Amino acid sequence: MLTYYVNGSYLNKADALISVEDRGFNFSDGVYEVIAFNKRKLLNFNKHIIRLKKSLKGISIKKPFYNFKSLELIILHLIDLNHLNKGFIYLQITRGSAKRNHLFPKRVKPNVIIFAFSNKNLDNLLEGVKVGTSEDIRWLRCDLKSISLLPNLLEKQKAFDKGLYEIWQKRDSLITEGSTSNAFIVNSNNTILTHPKNNLILGGVTRDCVVNLAKKNKILLEEKAFSMNDIKRCKEAFLTSTTVGVLPVIKIDNLIINNKKIGEITKKIINLYNQFLKNQIK
Amino acid sequence: MLTYYVNGSYLNKADALISVEDRGFNFSDGVYEVIAFNKRKLLNFNKHIIRLKKSLKGISIKKPFYNFKSLELIILHLIDLNHLNKGFIYLQITRGSAKRNHLFPKRVKPNVIIFAFSNKNLDNLLEGVKVGTSEDIRWLRCDLKSISLLPNLLEKQKAFDKGLYEIWQKRDSLITEGSTSNAFIVNSNNTILTHPKNNLILGGVTRDCVVNLAKKNKILLEEKAFSMNDIKRCKEAFLTSTTVGVLPVIKIDNLIINNKKIGEITKKIINLYNQFLKNQIK
Repeated sequence: MLTYYVNGSYLNKADALISVEDRGFNFSDGVYEVIAFNKRKLLNFNKHIIRLKKSLKGISIKKPFYNFKSLELIILHLIDLNHLNKGFIYLQITRGSAKRNHLFPKRVKPNVIIFAFSNKNLDNLLEGVKVGTSEDIRWLRCDLKSISLLPNLLEKQKAFDKGLYEIWQKRDSLITEGSTSNAFIVNSNNTILTHPKNNLILGGVTRDCVVNLAKKNKILLEEKAFSMNDIKRCKEAFLTSTTVGVLPVIKIDNLIINNKKIGEITKKIINLYNQFLKNQIK
Repeated sequence: MLTYYVNGSYLNKADALISVEDRGFNFSDGVYEVIAFNKRKLLNFNKHIIRLKKSLKGISIKKPFYNFKSLELIILHLIDLNHLNKGFIYLQITRGSAKRNHLFPKRVKPNVIIFAFSNKNLDNLLEGVKVGTSEDIRWLRCDLKSISLLPNLLEKQKAFDKGLYEIWQKRDSLITEGSTSNAFIVNSNNTILTHPKNNLILGGVTRDCVVNLAKKNKILLEEKAFSMNDIKRCKEAFLTSTTVGVLPVIKIDNLIINNKKIGEITKKIINLYNQFLKNQIK
């Protein structure tokens, strides 16, 4: 029986409940983070907290009652109660529970929910995944990590139904990002390309780590959107997310990438990223 | 203490709870309807059910366990338990509760939540409301009445903060609809204009009633999108929703409409709509 944190209490699953008037439940009026942990260490924790603060501010949810240092302690206690060594934390904050009305309620306290889950088995993905593409139909504030995720669900399910791992979304012919991950290609000049951070994509924590690691290690990288034409000429492709890290992409629509092999630059990025995480748990 | 329906049980507010792993709560993976009632009669019930079925199908949620006739009986019993004569029913159906994963879970049962609320006091709105305009930043499946409503909340709050009742959203210079209502103007040819039903707007039940009533009563109406230029030249304006019915609009941005008076055609539409509702409770 896994333990859940709900507004200050550590509860069994059956008791981990929320009001049917929670505004997250009625309106998707909330934000979330997924944070990896290993050996009681929360990986990239500060980066997640910075983004969480940005998301909360972006939809005018007041800071929950505790400070973010105490949030770390709450999460570590939850990990202990769950007897987990390695896995992920899901943290969701909604505006709170109130009589249903579109307008923000006054004097409402945010609802804070945290639960932990163990590592997915990624073995079948490490050799590379296939992605499709489709029009990006999401709203224009994808930079906020909100729970308003229905479009993402529909895209991810579409991928699965087609035997694909992910859908890369296109807006005005340019790839923005996947439904649950950020998208990268390596062009013929050995330069990594990925969509710049703006309102059209979520600034993924793993994405940002990859951008920084490339720069530090003199791997060419441009934060510049790429098109299907760029994909046709690309040498390598990969995607990133907190739950899968860096995954090679070996097929995009009908285009085979790098003869279905993991490219040299992708390999470098994977190794650098894995080392970067390892350094955090020393 | 109002009574809530949650998956087969009629519960007090304190017990009206849902799992923190409900997919509506985590992902906005659900749909809803708001239905007016008067004297134990559910107004426009069939129209709401048709739209509900469309929304459920649109996001591939399997039909909940009961048929829609039994849903009507469930709702009427809830109204009785709440001792309400007149008001609104809020009905929300989510895909169900499951371990968090973007992909649709197998063998999951939808969660069905219903609660009732009494009539808002509309007295201060009946003489006309002010609306602003802004860019429509929502996703491209606004025709689905999903709970993925964060963009709508942000717009409605923006309206309130500016002392306005509503924001009319513009896409490619054309008004789509309000954040919680449909938008109409009357042009210089005495023709009512409103955005056609497609993926850019929610096909409001009250909107559809107004379109039908106009046609039946030989009031000119075109389902054609209008621009700010059309607004500058318009004679009247109004908006519609289930909770407010038909409301005159007397100001749009800085433009005073019809000298802040309720126009003749708007008056006709209001009377026809009120009569149409009255006929249902005879």
